[in-house]
Amino acid sequence: MMTEQARPAEAHRVVIVGAGFGGLEATYRLAGAPVSITLVDRRNHHLFQPLLYQVATASLATSEIAWPVRYLLRGRPEVTTLYATVTGIDAQARRVLLDDGDALPYDTLVLATGARHAYFGHDEWEPFAPGLKTLEDATTLRRRILVAFERAERETDPQRRAALLTFVIIGAGPTGVELAGTIAELAQDTLPPDFRNIDTHKARVVLIEAGPRVLAGFADDLSAYAQRALESIGVEIVLNQPVTECTADCVVYGGHRLETKTIIWAAGVRASPAAEWLGAPADRAGRLEVLPDLTVPGHPDIYAIGDTVVIAGPDGKPVPGIAPAAKQQGRYVAEAIKARLRGGTPAPFRYKHAGSLAQIGKRKAVIDFGRFKLRGALAWWIWGIAHIYFLIGLRHRLSVAISWLWVYARDQRAARLITQGSSKVAR
Amino acid sequence: MMTEQARPAEAHRVVIVGAGFGGLEATYRLAGAPVSITLVDRRNHHLFQPLLYQVATASLATSEIAWPVRYLLRGRPEVTTLYATVTGIDAQARRVLLDDGDALPYDTLVLATGARHAYFGHDEWEPFAPGLKTLEDATTLRRRILVAFERAERETDPQRRAALLTFVIIGAGPTGVELAGTIAELAQDTLPPDFRNIDTHKARVVLIEAGPRVLAGFADDLSAYAQRALESIGVEIVLNQPVTECTADCVVYGGHRLETKTIIWAAGVRASPAAEWLGAPADRAGRLEVLPDLTVPGHPDIYAIGDTVVIAGPDGKPVPGIAPAAKQQGRYVAEAIKARLRGGTPAPFRYKHAGSLAQIGKRKAVIDFGRFKLRGALAWWIWGIAHIYFLIGLRHRLSVAISWLWVYARDQRAARLITQGSSKVAR
Repeated sequence: MMTEQARPAEAHRVVIVGAGFGGLEATYRLAGAPVSITLVDRRNHHLFQPLLYQVATASLATSEIAWPVRYLLRGRPEVTTLYATVTGIDAQARRVLLDDGDALPYDTLVLATGARHAYFGHDEWEPFAPGLKTLEDATTLRRRILVAFERAERETDPQRRAALLTFVIIGAGPTGVELAGTIAELAQDTLPPDFRNIDTHKARVVLIEAGPRVLAGFADDLSAYAQRALESIGVEIVLNQPVTECTADCVVYGGHRLETKTIIWAAGVRASPAAEWLGAPADRAGRLEVLPDLTVPGHPDIYAIGDTVVIAGPDGKPVPGIAPAAKQQGRYVAEAIKARLRGGTPAPFRYKHAGSLAQIGKRKAVIDFGRFKLRGALAWWIWGIAHIYFLIGLRHRLSVAISWLWVYARDQRAARLITQGSSKVAR
Repeated sequence: MMTEQARPAEAHRVVIVGAGFGGLEATYRLAGAPVSITLVDRRNHHLFQPLLYQVATASLATSEIAWPVRYLLRGRPEVTTLYATVTGIDAQARRVLLDDGDALPYDTLVLATGARHAYFGHDEWEPFAPGLKTLEDATTLRRRILVAFERAERETDPQRRAALLTFVIIGAGPTGVELAGTIAELAQDTLPPDFRNIDTHKARVVLIEAGPRVLAGFADDLSAYAQRALESIGVEIVLNQPVTECTADCVVYGGHRLETKTIIWAAGVRASPAAEWLGAPADRAGRLEVLPDLTVPGHPDIYAIGDTVVIAGPDGKPVPGIAPAAKQQGRYVAEAIKARLRGGTPAPFRYKHAGSLAQIGKRKAVIDFGRFKLRGALAWWIWGIAHIYFLIGLRHRLSVAISWLWVYARDQRAARLITQGSSKVAR
């Protein structure tokens, strides 16, 4: 199906599935190598997932954290971008199977297919407790949060109104903490002057965590600081409580029933079906167990990277599912492919943990770089500058900087739009 | 249902239905009057419709042309914003009926409910030829246009590929002309470096008009200029041809069948059901025939303004359905309400036509201010500055200015996102 005019017929064919941080980095780093590349994604855009919660909470627009994949690779004639859904892999024939019945032949395959949120055997909770992985997830969450305030404004029954003004976030990792902090600020700082019948200050934001502390991946004192900082902006924190039920009207934990109309799932992820495609060994979360050179056992021509794999870091703990880890793996795979094409044997992948950052509120963040730890306002500025730095392209940086400036200085969030339905549909 | 704490019990109750240009202007201009206002809309945002085609063609983000209504009225404690859908009017009891069974009592009612696109008795065309009135319409069109290019990239059959690369716009008013010009530029300037298998320069953009010229509302020489300008960027123009059929695969006009996968409807509108709610006289497009003081015949306490009414201008021709006309009517109604409360009788509404503007391409526009006519690059700059001026708030102005700067200088459109579905769903 692909016309091959742009590539030498003898070029080594690399197919990369997934244009997230890992897949895109591998594509970037293969520049100049004697390969032809096909990058397949079922979305047309690369997404800056670390800021997705800001779209869900109306601080940023969708186009501020997403880029058309084609656009990012417009200067690379040897790269073909394909907007298609992969349905399986024929490893014997070395072909990637697509949803339209077509197949892509490869010499080397890179699987960078990411993860979705997971409900630990409770998939029936998904409609009541949506997660946050795609732009649609974010605009759906934004609609739910804003519609809850709108319905509360029209509700006369005090109990129902209280349920509408109760926002529950399940899972206190970085995403859960950032969502809880931002929703609290929305209710405390942005929305109060807008409503006439409700006092949005009275909205409850409840963060429920099964483990003993928030931000478990950070140092103990930073966790404690994050907890205090969240509580200071009105977030209620419930620790050591696994959720046992989610419905349209409530969440249940430890025998306690909390009435709410808005539950957000930030508690766990499940890898894409890459392991199933290959019939390869995977852990409980569906993540491929790859070899030290990031190839799939028994498939030396198939690499797997990012959230869809599990591999131990130098400290023996699994490499975390964060953007820098996926990028390091993408870079490693590109170098490994180049080394092999030169006849060499690449050294094993070695993860270097650069550090962890999480934003808590408008002027509060925590930074854990191992030896170097920071919290408070300075950490927040570093967090902001680092994230703007990692955005691609001057236009996005300018645009996000302006949006943040407005949130910072005026407490106004421009993206407070309820889309996908009128008031009738949304209720 | 409304708590009344913020308003004097004796205040005259004004209910305004619709937060478009007319309804919002009436609300603004009633500031300081001894009234309590309830502004109802089934969307939570005011939309700057004149730039909606730029969202559909990926130049602007949704949040750059929309504002939460509540936010715009946050400093007006006597105004209650209601996110609700009106289902009817009980004119006898002076109540507006809402979808949740609730009713809003009024002393004066202002209907500013706008219009939707209309298919002249061919509603079956709507799925194949969507129109452009809401943010969702715009993101849906954007998805269709971008997905057509994506599918063409994967299509090997030359005939099917040609159909995917044929974009048909029906109706050559300002919206049709602006859409045709922008899609042509997308194909000619923005997309070429992104694709490997197709040459997007070969995309056809066909503008079909039932009447004898494009931009019929403008002076003859400006129409002729617009036609030449469109043709110079590759738009094919078909005049004097009413469309007789739209399907999933083609559009038919004058016995000619044109294969296409993307049809956009910019040919006609139908007023909201305000006339039906009242059983009041309306024209063929469903527009209420109002009295010279913009009240509905037989209902001196009900005003109707904007696209949902038809009234003759000073030249005898109907007042056009454009934003400045709706705003003038909103302003008039606010002044009329204030005059009546003082015991006066307002003079009849008199429309002043300020002028017409339309953008054709990146450096081309036409301006028809009656005596003052302008076309070309200078007109384009005036068009751009005027539109940025009319946006609400510095943040939106900055943001749109940056987006346009990027389109202008780099031919890059940041909002090229296919959302609401993966490649599988979208096809």
